[in-house]
This record gives sequence, structure tokens and C-alpha cells, in this order.
Amino acid sequence: MSAQVSRRAVLEAVGATGGAGILFEAMGLLGLAPTEATSRVAYRPPASADFSLSGRRRARVVVLGAGIAGLAAAYELGKAGYDCRVLEAKDRPGGRNWTVRGGTTERDLDGRTQTSAFAAGQYLNAGPARIAQWMVTLDYCRELGVAIEPMANQNADEVIYHQKGPLSGHPIAYRTAKADVYGYISELLAKATDRGSLDGELTATDKEKLLEFLRDFGDIGGREHGWRYTGSSRRGYRVNPGAGSQRGVVLTPPPSLHDVLGSDVGLDFSFELEYRQAMMMFQPVGGMDRIVDALTRRVGRHRVRFGCQVLSVTDRPDGVEVLFRDGEGGTRHETGDFCVAAMPPHLLARLRHNLGGEVQRALGLPRPLSVGKLGLEYGRRWWEEDEHIFGGITTTDMDVRQIWHPSHGFLGDRGVVLGYYNRDADSLLYDSLDPAARVRRAVAAGVRIYGEKYRDELVSSFSVAWRRTPFIEGGWISWPNGTEREYALLNKPAGRVYFAGDWLSHLVSWQAGAFLSARAAVMGIHERAMASQVS
Amino acid sequence: MSAQVSRRAVLEAVGATGGAGILFEAMGLLGLAPTEATSRVAYRPPASADFSLSGRRRARVVVLGAGIAGLAAAYELGKAGYDCRVLEAKDRPGGRNWTVRGGTTERDLDGRTQTSAFAAGQYLNAGPARIAQWMVTLDYCRELGVAIEPMANQNADEVIYHQKGPLSGHPIAYRTAKADVYGYISELLAKATDRGSLDGELTATDKEKLLEFLRDFGDIGGREHGWRYTGSSRRGYRVNPGAGSQRGVVLTPPPSLHDVLGSDVGLDFSFELEYRQAMMMFQPVGGMDRIVDALTRRVGRHRVRFGCQVLSVTDRPDGVEVLFRDGEGGTRHETGDFCVAAMPPHLLARLRHNLGGEVQRALGLPRPLSVGKLGLEYGRRWWEEDEHIFGGITTTDMDVRQIWHPSHGFLGDRGVVLGYYNRDADSLLYDSLDPAARVRRAVAAGVRIYGEKYRDELVSSFSVAWRRTPFIEGGWISWPNGTEREYALLNKPAGRVYFAGDWLSHLVSWQAGAFLSARAAVMGIHERAMASQVS
Repeated sequence: MSAQVSRRAVLEAVGATGGAGILFEAMGLLGLAPTEATSRVAYRPPASADFSLSGRRRARVVVLGAGIAGLAAAYELGKAGYDCRVLEAKDRPGGRNWTVRGGTTERDLDGRTQTSAFAAGQYLNAGPARIAQWMVTLDYCRELGVAIEPMANQNADEVIYHQKGPLSGHPIAYRTAKADVYGYISELLAKATDRGSLDGELTATDKEKLLEFLRDFGDIGGREHGWRYTGSSRRGYRVNPGAGSQRGVVLTPPPSLHDVLGSDVGLDFSFELEYRQAMMMFQPVGGMDRIVDALTRRVGRHRVRFGCQVLSVTDRPDGVEVLFRDGEGGTRHETGDFCVAAMPPHLLARLRHNLGGEVQRALGLPRPLSVGKLGLEYGRRWWEEDEHIFGGITTTDMDVRQIWHPSHGFLGDRGVVLGYYNRDADSLLYDSLDPAARVRRAVAAGVRIYGEKYRDELVSSFSVAWRRTPFIEGGWISWPNGTEREYALLNKPAGRVYFAGDWLSHLVSWQAGAFLSARAAVMGIHERAMASQVS
Repeated sequence: MSAQVSRRAVLEAVGATGGAGILFEAMGLLGLAPTEATSRVAYRPPASADFSLSGRRRARVVVLGAGIAGLAAAYELGKAGYDCRVLEAKDRPGGRNWTVRGGTTERDLDGRTQTSAFAAGQYLNAGPARIAQWMVTLDYCRELGVAIEPMANQNADEVIYHQKGPLSGHPIAYRTAKADVYGYISELLAKATDRGSLDGELTATDKEKLLEFLRDFGDIGGREHGWRYTGSSRRGYRVNPGAGSQRGVVLTPPPSLHDVLGSDVGLDFSFELEYRQAMMMFQPVGGMDRIVDALTRRVGRHRVRFGCQVLSVTDRPDGVEVLFRDGEGGTRHETGDFCVAAMPPHLLARLRHNLGGEVQRALGLPRPLSVGKLGLEYGRRWWEEDEHIFGGITTTDMDVRQIWHPSHGFLGDRGVVLGYYNRDADSLLYDSLDPAARVRRAVAAGVRIYGEKYRDELVSSFSVAWRRTPFIEGGWISWPNGTEREYALLNKPAGRVYFAGDWLSHLVSWQAGAFLSARAAVMGIHERAMASQVS
């Protein structure tokens, strides 16, 4: 009998007697993670047959905003033949899913206009830039035919650079920092274990197993060497192993325990353990907006109107009326049986509407965050050629915070480095600068890590200050504490108006949140449409 | 003054007074890793100008074996116009760099013939399958125009499956195992630290820093919670975070400390810290043999003769004569000024030659290892669709050892899973089975982890037993202890015969070792050619 069968037998037995809650506990204990399986099965997209078999009229839906939530709602509703109209204030779909390419132009709220001079094939994912394996976003990539490739969210040869602390002022490879931190904590725990300090917690067998693990994990000496960490080939090599007599010269000795602890490099390790960030991570081949392109195509270009700024939303017993200013400055209106309001909450809060004071107050609560990104195009992939870094993220305590090396175009002749990815105070500082000054500041930081080539070989650049980007005005939002009631309120329809967006999910800032929120709105609308009188 | 400049100033000062050894120490202390830079600068490929400027005759070189070492030698020598002839016993170039595709046929030493029925675009890298960022192999990919893509050597959603121990019998995600091991060791070390057990090793500041690190690294409670690890969202979710009220249900509770330690899952973590294995890792787009194709093209197809089994090598004062059996069974010979013997040592040891008893004894020392791989083609990428695993390696204590999910063709409609990658006793066991029995055994193991679909959805398969593969007869070799002298001997020319291969490097089993060994042979030949009389 296979383990699979016996597991199932156990679960069925538990499920039969203990109910679903206990069944889930048992699955957890068995290491089974149904995860998305559960939520995915729960979503059944509206189907054309739902109408044809029931004789009901296909409803008309006005969608506000052609970001991921709006497009996904229109796409899912479109599967059943809903007549959707999407109103988008910008001149392009996607919202924050925005890929900057050569020729991309944007004028920000401060009147600063940039036009990207990136070469053909070069791009910057200015908004979302990574997708975890478990996220529904990959299901959409599959369904939409969007090819994906790995995104290097972790790289042992990437660099930690601290301005402060005992190891400051020079780049340290992640592999080196890990070897030292893991080495020293293994040494410490082995010593404490071996001298009996943890005998209250550990049996003799536990101690033996723990010491075996620590020797392997920390690459430390055995008891006869006092469990000492003295460096490891995991740190890297000064001269690589090679042919003939070239055994390689390991990069030793490591800094002292005191300096390693004091440097805080170890605080950079938990990122890659996060549920949302652990490798493998992915990106669409060719740019994140491939998802937008595919969604827009499936929705139908003719259903998406650009340059349309929504002015008011009026909920009526029999439908919704939306007033908007069109590209020519005229005021027009669109009506539907339902409305999906898939705009950022802080922009919805500015509309005239009749959805009530509670809704208005709730819409005013999520705080838009300042988030910034800068694309730096180089005419040579010096990070690959000189540093042997193929994709990944440099972490620093400077205000650029992160420098990303591209996860595409490997071995090519040019590439776009992300010169900063920051938020809050760091981002506000860059927001306040004009684009040329942002580049100067960010490049000066990069020079400290990578040397003068970081400045000398720069070809072009393009920066995005999300807080200052028209019709978006924020990187993502944060719900203040104590707003559970308002969050719940906006997750319910206000009359015939359904709100949608990553801000109405527990995956804020992730496209998966927008997709799942859109599905929730779609299910709500479809249930109502199916429950309505046969027309 | 930038950090770059100040570092350089420091190094120059040290270098001026302390010599190269101390300079390297200082660079190490500064976290600088010149690594390959050093060895790469040292290699200057032979150039056409070397001959045209010196008026010397371009020599003729006979290369034995069209594996990576042989092809690389012929390629590098070819840059200067050396007249190279490559003799290859098999009907294809590449040696162990072998990509099995639909139509690939191989007859092993036991007379078992397999023909791959893989669909178009599907393949198995039967030999080398990954390249680290620092390896010279990537330089060759750049130079040869071979496109690369990431290879998923680490994946948080991949699975550990143990048959034995307290957590046996069900798959455990790496992310779950890591969260638990890191959580518990952080708890233990925090307790020992906080109760003063390590006061001899740690200052008060050290303790504070260490506790801060452990809270972050282990996701454990603070002092007020007794530093306890009680689970973490890093383990994964039973129900993923989603829209609306779906906060997600974390996979808890974790198994006990005793069970986690007893399970040995932690012993699977150090692999990804190894200098040769840490992400990012890479593979050529389309199959590892893209490197072989490109090398062969640059060498010139007409210079490589297939089906030629070398019989003898005779070193003479004025050149080398090689006798071989050609494809038609006739005995022929090839002569050159020099010879690069780039065959496996255990096969060289069988040749007739006049290179002396010491050489013969040395050639007999490296022990060829049994290594096996099995490609399992599925008509559906169930690991992506059902398990949300996009590339990576399942680790198990069963005799299949590893199951690899492909790092290419993501979201496609089929794929080739590596059903086993094993060596030594495990591999010898599979070697002894006929191909169908290998599949039955390996599939039974996979079913235990992934269920019946592992058997039901299998479409085709192809297995490789390197020890039983003609003209190769081993996965790679191992030098017995105490053979340093013989290793050194074979790294020197035997008369006009130069040996080359990964077996003559400190990167055994890696293509980089073959490339670097070939370079060493090329340098040796070229120095001699340049030192010789002008003809």
C-alpha cells in the first residue's frame, strides 16, 4: 500500500469522525498543504452556459480602472458573456503593472516628464516584478499563454553593503555572510549543547542529532576542535579551484564573531524564508505587462476606454450610472447593471457618489505609500562580466535600499539595473528630486559598492515615483490598525457597486491580491445575476 | 572619496610593503574575492598573430576524445590556426555532455538498446546539468553565443521525503523544514544565550545582537514568550492568504523539537550553501549540448572524426602517432606535432603506448564512479498544476535519491522529470536492471511521494547508466587518497602527449574542470610551439 493511499485513509477516517476543522489539523500534521487547492476549487468562473441554460439576460458591467483587478474582473465576467466596459484614466492599461520600455513617456504630478531611451528589448518592471509559485497569478499566466522565467530573488553572489557597523564600507557576498553567521551560531549552540546548558530541553539523542546538524550546517570543527568555526569554502574563494595544481584559495579568515554579530548582516537572511519571497520566484518573459497585454486582448480592446477620468458613481435600484470626462474633455456617462470599482481607494474617495457616509469614510482610511524605482541602463553587463553576478538583489543600508540585477538577457550586451527600490522616507526623498538628481544620488550610492563603472558606463535611465504618478498616486496602500470593520464593509457591495483591488485582500501589493479580489467581485455579481428574475 | 578608491589605496599600501601573500590576506579581510579574475587574466588564448608575427609554423595536434576537454583544446588551439584533428569513438561529440532528445538511441555495454520517444522540445541533460555563476563555463557560453537560463537548484516548495525517522512517510516542503529547524535552533540558542551559558563567549552587546538575529532568523517569540518557536507563516499555508476575509491559515502546529531533530531534514540544507551549488545556477537554453554544438561548429565539423576508437599512442622525438580503428573497422593512423589525450583515464589506461610505466600506473588510479539518471516524460506538468512546484529538486532517502523537476518549459503541456540521480551502490543497483525495470522501480518510489499520477501519467522514459556507456564507462572519477604524485605526473606532458579532462582538475565532474584543464594543455603546447625553432 502506498504512503499516498495510507495518508488518504487516515484523513478519511479523521474527516468522517472529526469534521473539517480536525481534518485540516490532521492534514497539517501530516505535512500536507492543500493551500490554494482549497481556494481554487472554490472559484468557478462564470460560464456562458450559466445564461444559456437559465434563459437569463447577460448583464452589463461598468469597470472603473484597467489595472489588474479591473481587467481580471472584465475578463472573468466576459467568459459568461457579460457586456463589460472598462474606463481607464491613463492612456494605457495595467495600472501599477507597468513595464517601461524605450519610448515610454510619463508626466508626473509635479509636471516632470521623462521619456525612456532604453534600447530595444530592455525594460524596467516599474511596478510588480515577481511572482511566487503558489500565487494565482501563475494560473493566469498559464491560462493567458504568458510565458514565464525565473526571477533571481536570491543569489549567493549578490552583495550586502552596509555603511554602518563593523563590516561597513565594502561589499560582502551573501554566501560569505551566510557562511560566517551560520558558522558562528553553530559553534555557539554546539558549545552550549555540549557543555550541558540545554540538558533541560534536550535528550541525549537530541543532543547527538543537534550536534550532527550543527557540524553540517555551520561547517564547524568537531568536539576535538572545540566546535570552532574558522571559515569555510562556502565563504567563497580568493582564487577559484581550477586545473592541475590549482586547488583554489578559500577566502579566509572570517571576521570575528563580535564583528559578524555587530554587522547585522544576518538580518538580511530572513527575507528569502518569507512565504511570499522564497525562491523559486518568476516573472513573465519580456516584461510584467505581458499579463496586461494578454488580459486586455481577452477582454477586447474595444471594451477598454482610455483617458476617461471617472467623476461620479450613482447607485440606483435598477443599475449604476458613471459620469466621466473623456479624452476630449467632454463629460459622458456609462451605465450598467453593476459596477466594479477597481481604482485605488484614495482616488475612489475623491469621487462624487451616493454610496453613503460609511463607505466614504472607509475609502479614506487606506494610506497610500510612497514607493520608488529607478531603471539604469548600462551598455555592458559589467555585473556579469566583472562580478559574476547573474541576477539578484544587492541589499544596502543606504537610501537606495536595493539594487537589482536583471533576471533576463543573461550574457547579452546591455541591461537595465534597478538602481533603487525604496519606500516611505527613502522614497519621499527621491520623489522630491527631479529625475536627473535622482540618478545622481542613486549612482553615487552604487559607485560606493561597484566602483566608478557604475557611473561611467551608464547609458540612460528612467525613474518612477508612484506617489506622484497621475491616477495612481501610491505604490500600494496600508490599512491602519483597527480598521477591520471598514475593510469588511468595502469587501461587500455598496448597492450595485463592487470594490476590487489588492487593497481588499491579504496580499496587498501583489497582483495575486488583485486577481483574487476581482474574482470575489465577479462571484458576487454572478450570484446576483443568477438569482435575479428570468428576463 | 569613494569606498572603491579607499579600498584600492589600502590594498596598494599593503601590497607595496607586504608582498602578494599579505595583499591577498588584506583583500580577503576586506571581503574582496578576486577569484576567477586572477586565473582568467592568467589565460591568454593562442592567437593567430603569435605565428604570423614570429614566422613559426602552425603545429598539428591530434586530440583524443571530443568531450568538453577535447573540443575546448581544439577550439582554443584553433584560434591560432593550429591544425587539429579530433578522434571520437562515439558517433556524437560531447562525451558526458549529452542531451537525450526524441530519437536519441544508445546501446549500452550490456547490449541494452534504448531509443528516446520524447516529444519535440523535450530533453534530458544526462550528464552535466548545472553551471555555477563563477565557473568559466559561462564565459564560454558568452563567447560561443550559447543562451543560458536559470536552473532551479533550490526551491522552497520542493519536497523532502524520508522513509525513515520521525517525519517519515509524507512529503515535507523545504520551506516547512527550514522554518522548523531554524525556529528550534534559534529558540535553543536564544535560551542558552539569555540564561548566560555563553557569557564566556559573548559580550553584553554580542548577546543583544545575537538575540535580535535569532528572533528574526527563527521567527521566535521574545523573552516574554520564553523565546519559543511555535510555528511561522514561513512554514507555508494550509489555505493561502486571499481576498476579503481570507487571511490564510498557516500550516501549524510544527512537529516537536525532538521529531524535527530526529528526522534529519536539517541535513538537507547545507547543499544550497556549497560554493558549487548555491543559487543562482544556470543551464543552456535548449539543452546542455548547445555548448557541444557551438564548440564543434567553431572547431569545424570536418576536424572531428566519429566512430574512431583509439588503439595506440606513440610518442616520438618529432611528433606523435595515433593508431585507431575507424568506423568501417579499418586500422588507420593520425600524426601530429602534439597530442591532447582528453579521454577518461580508465580508457587511456587500456591503450597501447610508449609513455612509460609510471604514466601507465598513474592512469590506472582514478576510479570511475557509477552514476545514473532517468528521464520520465509526462504528458502534463502535474508538479506545476497540482503541487505548484516550478523546477527544483526533491530529496529523498530512497535509492532514487533525487527527483528533479525541469527548469524549462514552465507552464507548458508536458515535461521531462528526472526520476533518479544517484551514484555508487544506488546507481549500481539500477545499472543492473534493464531499462523497463529501472522505470518500474523509480516510479514506485515517486508514487510514494507524489501519488498514482506519477505512474499513470508517464508517457515515455530514457535511462542512462554511465558506468555501462561505451567509450565513457563512468559518471566521473575519484582519485584515491595518496595519489598526489600521480595526479601531478599526469598534469605534465608525457613527451608530446598532454592529458586533459575534468579528472585533471579540482573541479572533477564539472565542465569547468574540463575547460580549465584543456586550457592548461593548450598553454603548455603553445609555449613549446613558440619556444621552438622558427621553421
